[in-house]
Amino acid sequence: MQTSIKNVAFAGSGNVAWHLALELKLKGYHISHVWSREYTNADELAKSCGSVACADIAGLREGSDLIIIAVADDAINDVARSIGKFDGIVVHTAGSVAMDILKHSFEHYGVLYPLQTFSKETAVHFADVPFLLEASSPEVLKAINQVALKLSPRVYDADSQKRMLLHIAAVFASNYSNLMYVISNEILNNSNLPPDIMYPLIQETAQKIMKGDPLKMQTGPARRHDDTTIEKHIAALASMPEYADLYRLLANLISKKYK
Amino acid sequence: MQTSIKNVAFAGSGNVAWHLALELKLKGYHISHVWSREYTNADELAKSCGSVACADIAGLREGSDLIIIAVADDAINDVARSIGKFDGIVVHTAGSVAMDILKHSFEHYGVLYPLQTFSKETAVHFADVPFLLEASSPEVLKAINQVALKLSPRVYDADSQKRMLLHIAAVFASNYSNLMYVISNEILNNSNLPPDIMYPLIQETAQKIMKGDPLKMQTGPARRHDDTTIEKHIAALASMPEYADLYRLLANLISKKYK
Repeated sequence: MQTSIKNVAFAGSGNVAWHLALELKLKGYHISHVWSREYTNADELAKSCGSVACADIAGLREGSDLIIIAVADDAINDVARSIGKFDGIVVHTAGSVAMDILKHSFEHYGVLYPLQTFSKETAVHFADVPFLLEASSPEVLKAINQVALKLSPRVYDADSQKRMLLHIAAVFASNYSNLMYVISNEILNNSNLPPDIMYPLIQETAQKIMKGDPLKMQTGPARRHDDTTIEKHIAALASMPEYADLYRLLANLISKKYK
Repeated sequence: MQTSIKNVAFAGSGNVAWHLALELKLKGYHISHVWSREYTNADELAKSCGSVACADIAGLREGSDLIIIAVADDAINDVARSIGKFDGIVVHTAGSVAMDILKHSFEHYGVLYPLQTFSKETAVHFADVPFLLEASSPEVLKAINQVALKLSPRVYDADSQKRMLLHIAAVFASNYSNLMYVISNEILNNSNLPPDIMYPLIQETAQKIMKGDPLKMQTGPARRHDDTTIEKHIAALASMPEYADLYRLLANLISKKYK
């Protein structure tokens, strides 16, 4: 095992692999190999970060100090078992997969979980991205900590249970707040109102939470126990019964917090 | 009725009245009077915008071209009826109250609805705030349109039904996305994780929607139909059964959109 990592290989070529590989390259690491289920995808990413694609996953081991497995959660186990005997460090990048999934395949392993939503079209400001680390030994932790700190100053230790709770919190804060934007957008579309009319309110709401507890920042009819408005709104959603039910459920959740 | 408005009076001294009065003052309007149920609140706002508080609500009529009623939705009717005979324009600022609530009390009336979440502690960038207008006549619309355009270039016409649908969309986009932040925060607190770990993800999620349809921006386990992760998350929320149920409901809503 190399404690000062210089050569990094990637299993996977999705959004997380893509952004991480380009950023590591930018920070001076050599991307030794890229493997993906689809060779053309591996090749595309490899070309973008001065690396080489390998058709055989075992090729990832060659000249690598660290292999980053950035594939779908349910593929991690198979991918790990296919890599073969490797003396370096292997990490996965998943929020809700326990570190121990790597235990049977490797001696030195860990997790490097970036808490961010990655899309290929959108640039990632890595300096803002929190990284959650877990490792099979203090030596591995030290080695991957050095890598993480090159990417971002916001590096935390978290065991598998804590990391999963953080992932759940992120599902609410990101995936489910985005669902609220989706629903809002549908209502606007049905009313022939332009989607951008909502942008300033959405930005202001997201920015407010950085000024204090979101519980204190809550506004709206449910917070005020304004049942007249709540019932008017639910009646107006009659043609979208799923959203009417959801409106009532969420109004009740808020209302209970301000008894 | 004065078609070129110069003197504006306020009924109410809450967050909306406060921000609107200061901004109108800044844009060169004279704030003729402020009335509030609590005289000391009216006095505080009046002093902040070079105005005078009146103890009797009928005092609002004196020297005013426009009276803005910015009070709780269920108080608008009473406040309107207490103002008395007034030849100028009277508007309310509520999203989900029909304009006609003012019909029996005034000849010239309308609605000036700012689509934003107002807190006393937070500065409002009025140039970004959409204003939704409705008026009892084209002349009133023209007069309040001039006022709104001094506050923001984003001025729209909307009848009472459309305005209410916009308000409902805003409840989802703002109040309910904030509830998602609240839940996320509770989970972080229970796990001894700092709240600011989630800030970059929340900001990125909010900013992404300005790049395209939020339906395309959706990420997370439900979008990927990753049932293993979804069930793990729901099991981990066993000690918070309301949030476990909500997690499942929202996951199902997302999942159905990507069949």
